[in-house]
Amino acid sequence: MQDLIASSLKYQNNTLSVLDQYLLPHQQVWHVCDDVASMRELILNLKIRGAPLIGLGASLLVAHLAEQGMAKAALAQAIDDLEATRPTAVNLMHCMAKLRIALQQDDYVMAIVSAAVSLFNEDIALCESMAKQGAALVNSGDNILTHCNTGALATAGIGTALGVIYKAQQRHGDIHVWVDETRPLLQGGRLTAFELERWQVPYTLICDNMAASLMAAGKVDKIFVGADRIAANGDFANKVGTYNLAVLAHFHNIPFYVVAPLTTLDVSTACGADIEIEQRNSAEVRGVSGSFGEALWAPTNAQVYNPAFDVTPAKLITGWVLDTGVYDQQQVLAGKLKDLN
Amino acid sequence: MQDLIASSLKYQNNTLSVLDQYLLPHQQVWHVCDDVASMRELILNLKIRGAPLIGLGASLLVAHLAEQGMAKAALAQAIDDLEATRPTAVNLMHCMAKLRIALQQDDYVMAIVSAAVSLFNEDIALCESMAKQGAALVNSGDNILTHCNTGALATAGIGTALGVIYKAQQRHGDIHVWVDETRPLLQGGRLTAFELERWQVPYTLICDNMAASLMAAGKVDKIFVGADRIAANGDFANKVGTYNLAVLAHFHNIPFYVVAPLTTLDVSTACGADIEIEQRNSAEVRGVSGSFGEALWAPTNAQVYNPAFDVTPAKLITGWVLDTGVYDQQQVLAGKLKDLN
Repeated sequence: MQDLIASSLKYQNNTLSVLDQYLLPHQQVWHVCDDVASMRELILNLKIRGAPLIGLGASLLVAHLAEQGMAKAALAQAIDDLEATRPTAVNLMHCMAKLRIALQQDDYVMAIVSAAVSLFNEDIALCESMAKQGAALVNSGDNILTHCNTGALATAGIGTALGVIYKAQQRHGDIHVWVDETRPLLQGGRLTAFELERWQVPYTLICDNMAASLMAAGKVDKIFVGADRIAANGDFANKVGTYNLAVLAHFHNIPFYVVAPLTTLDVSTACGADIEIEQRNSAEVRGVSGSFGEALWAPTNAQVYNPAFDVTPAKLITGWVLDTGVYDQQQVLAGKLKDLN
Repeated sequence: MQDLIASSLKYQNNTLSVLDQYLLPHQQVWHVCDDVASMRELILNLKIRGAPLIGLGASLLVAHLAEQGMAKAALAQAIDDLEATRPTAVNLMHCMAKLRIALQQDDYVMAIVSAAVSLFNEDIALCESMAKQGAALVNSGDNILTHCNTGALATAGIGTALGVIYKAQQRHGDIHVWVDETRPLLQGGRLTAFELERWQVPYTLICDNMAASLMAAGKVDKIFVGADRIAANGDFANKVGTYNLAVLAHFHNIPFYVVAPLTTLDVSTACGADIEIEQRNSAEVRGVSGSFGEALWAPTNAQVYNPAFDVTPAKLITGWVLDTGVYDQQQVLAGKLKDLN
């Protein structure tokens, strides 16, 4: 397979490597990954994360295994096992579905490699298209609030919501970003802050519960977030705390945009209530743990509720920024997303 | 001065001691405090915290210093210095004002001691009254959400909002509490969880950004929070994230109550916009630090916005639970709070 290089995922000299996002921002460590068990471990422990990137990482691994001569039945099993790692983001399912089709071809090795390379390159192009579509919504001087991490670390390209912000900053030069730290796993405080620093985009880090008072003070012009799955009716699942922002934006009359490639759209899911929400372990809420240190501040056995995602209903969304265009609420409520698929 | 014993503050055998709330829940350490500098340090580093408790701690210290023979001018200076430690909570100002009046008496030592003892005992009685008023609003089986820590640790009595919850649980026996962890200083995750465990009230800890999805799922029946200052028009300042909850409660039609003693009401502040909001240091948002451990996850120089409080406008509040009664929005908007003073 040809060399494929992204911010946090690369295939080079027949070796697949993943930048450990659990260790960012203070350590930059790449892991070589050449079997299903280690990719599953990387995904489950969020060392590789971001809805598009998980799908691409899994796809490149399957292509690599096919090239290494893995038998057809074993490849089918690998696809099933990888697909089962995380339930909410649809990109992984989308990628695995493409590989399953490729596996039916006579020359299934070439077909799988070709599919994986296409998925990777398509993702770069999708990011570019979304960024252009979204940047057109941003005005000079805007203060943009975002949640979680949706940048180059989460995709093969420049990202989804953060790609829009990057492109807008390239265009205007005077954008400022409010970064939600995004408890419990701190993807905003760790990863988005890291990326914006690298990109030299001015940002200010906040705790998630501070966004409301910024909005009341008129200090937030627009909100851009990513998505893990968009249902046919426009509802979408994204990192927990996104729905919170959507309600706040609605109350304060602030435009709220979701940015995702068409591959995040799952028309087989009718509405948000049908999206399975992954529950994660209690330790994540009782404290923090990472390369940055370890801290348990709650009572050791504190009962915890820890959904990884929440669902934002279409009625709270100003616009869906997809690679194919920006769709407003009226269009989406009239069923536009179903036509796109 | 007579012995005075609360959960986190005690005067015993002529010694003033403070339970270090920075070290909770894993360590229970009491600090003896016998001068202004150490009380200021305890307050500034949140070792003693909670709007009512800060005022009482400072008052007991001044009374102790008066008994120890401190000169009148030095006492006046001590009162000024203690008042200047934190700007938002009005209870401290209220207490210091009472001591200033006492200092004008001929027998100012006795007057100050008497005022301090009264403030302490009044606080216990105020908590009891608020709890009774508030508990009457709670139904059997209610799921109550709360923010920050407003329990016995924050007062001389059983607390404000958490006192209501405690009293309701005593009455019904089947209350469940959703505890916001309350970033950045985690008073919910550390202190409220600790208190509810001690009181054997069932609770579940959540990250602040998870409250919205719980409300959407119909899992929150009522919200009770405390206050650091209530303005004449009913707006109030409280721990950052409170306003966030008020907006969410409004959107989801969930009753939202603020619980505070009349001493938290400051009719000289016309409205919320006139309340000074303390900004705290950046390190608190870049990571966490405490007896539980230390962790810095954000880029070392990340720019940060860190207001300790936010302001909730009267129009989002269902009821003001004061020791003198529960006042609804219609009454408060008609100016009821001004009459109470």
